[in-house]
Amino acid sequence: MTAADFQSWAAAGQALIEAFLQKVLPAPEIAPQRLHAAMRYAALGAGKRVRPLLAYAAGEVSQADPERVTAAGAAVELIHAYSLVHDDLPCMDDDVLRRGKPTCHVEFDEATALLVGDALQSLAFQLVGEYRLADEASAQLEMVKLLAAASGSRGMAGGQAIDLAAVGKTLSVPELEFMHIHKTGALIRAAAVLGARCGSGLSEAEFARVDTYAKAVGLAFQVVDDVLDADAPSATLGKTAGKDAAQGKPTYVSAMGIVQARALAEQLRGEAHAAIAPFGARGARLAQLADFIVLRKF
Amino acid sequence: MTAADFQSWAAAGQALIEAFLQKVLPAPEIAPQRLHAAMRYAALGAGKRVRPLLAYAAGEVSQADPERVTAAGAAVELIHAYSLVHDDLPCMDDDVLRRGKPTCHVEFDEATALLVGDALQSLAFQLVGEYRLADEASAQLEMVKLLAAASGSRGMAGGQAIDLAAVGKTLSVPELEFMHIHKTGALIRAAAVLGARCGSGLSEAEFARVDTYAKAVGLAFQVVDDVLDADAPSATLGKTAGKDAAQGKPTYVSAMGIVQARALAEQLRGEAHAAIAPFGARGARLAQLADFIVLRKF
Repeated sequence: MTAADFQSWAAAGQALIEAFLQKVLPAPEIAPQRLHAAMRYAALGAGKRVRPLLAYAAGEVSQADPERVTAAGAAVELIHAYSLVHDDLPCMDDDVLRRGKPTCHVEFDEATALLVGDALQSLAFQLVGEYRLADEASAQLEMVKLLAAASGSRGMAGGQAIDLAAVGKTLSVPELEFMHIHKTGALIRAAAVLGARCGSGLSEAEFARVDTYAKAVGLAFQVVDDVLDADAPSATLGKTAGKDAAQGKPTYVSAMGIVQARALAEQLRGEAHAAIAPFGARGARLAQLADFIVLRKF
Repeated sequence: MTAADFQSWAAAGQALIEAFLQKVLPAPEIAPQRLHAAMRYAALGAGKRVRPLLAYAAGEVSQADPERVTAAGAAVELIHAYSLVHDDLPCMDDDVLRRGKPTCHVEFDEATALLVGDALQSLAFQLVGEYRLADEASAQLEMVKLLAAASGSRGMAGGQAIDLAAVGKTLSVPELEFMHIHKTGALIRAAAVLGARCGSGLSEAEFARVDTYAKAVGLAFQVVDDVLDADAPSATLGKTAGKDAAQGKPTYVSAMGIVQARALAEQLRGEAHAAIAPFGARGARLAQLADFIVLRKF
């Protein structure tokens, strides 16, 4: 597969997710209109859709029906979108720019942004309850549990809390890893594992390989984010650059320097590839995606 | 059944829910400790547990296993608890007193309270994914969907948005009803219907009776809240009294006067009783609960 092939695959997946979200997000004409307009503002039209792409790529390993993966990937993306809206609020990161647009509370208001996040989370679970994602309903209930655990206090929301507590502190590299495994890692792993679970025929050991891959990719994603945040201009990032360092947030760059951070990202990319090597050609998209995530410039 | 009998039944249900929540909320020793302590602060040790009691009472109609109803009722209660934490935030109602204690963001901080609400919502869905609630996994997926829809932008979160938009406005009684059907009604209906769905053997028409009952009770609950808010002292309510009126929020008392509001509550109590009359003795708890909700003094 060539880079151009990967780009068109990614673009197709992004378009499928966008169309699905367009459909499942309530129309802005439906009451309460302002809330629905704000939910659409927060969830549509931007974002790299990395988590759904991970779900699609992992679904190729288990030959999952892409329609199922679309619903699962959209649910994960809604959780991600809600977390961004809440993270940007004044009581959290107090950010005004996200994906090149004013953040939700700037464009609307704080109370609306709070409710947007709350309602996007509910919608994510509604999708997992409503759409057929697995052959067996019991397997789908397992997906509800997995997504909820990845989102909650021992997953993403917990990672945010650890992040808050870390502001102004110097963290060791293991402490940073603990934070990111929760804050971004849990949901990225859920995306890949849910995608794989939309198909059938994988053993638990094979699901564990997908999970190991996603753990490495998730951490690499954050390391690369820190590297890009340290040296890319805001216009390229679509968000305020250098903000983490300015807010006294510990980053991989502050903990180990930019050269070491780049080397760590490269090492994690190797670990991701190793985990999925036994899948052979079925793991090709996952391999490409790991490369895309680590080698991206934005 | 006597009033004393009802009180001991309610106390037993409240104790079951408290014990279950004690168990499923992560211990305060587990990282992130502050978040877990705050989640427990917000969800344990107070509250009338009206929604779980509705679930138990509705479960008696379908002879549901009380263990199942406990898990379902606890999930609904966690959604309710999260909504209170978020509603109390400065960007929403900016309240400092809840259930006789400082609100979560006052006791902890705003960012923690935001994450508490987010993580309680996730935990609610985790319970519905994790515990056995219905004979068939497919029926349980239906419960995931039902709870999510009741919580989201066309349910509870939507009701909050309608409420926000109504501040300082004069609403007609139908507009008030539209707001409350979303803000509190959706989750109350979900509690009753989920409780009934934990058992088996009810027809869709019978589930609809439970739903009609809960719709009337949910509205009555709000009408009574407005009446109590207008004339009870803060110490009895456990929250700041008269606050809705002071904030320019439309209430049933402001829309129709306290005498008419009391008459409306009484009328809704009659509708609730009528809906469940065909259940006979199996509906006795639901009947008592409607009386408790309308005739309560706190």
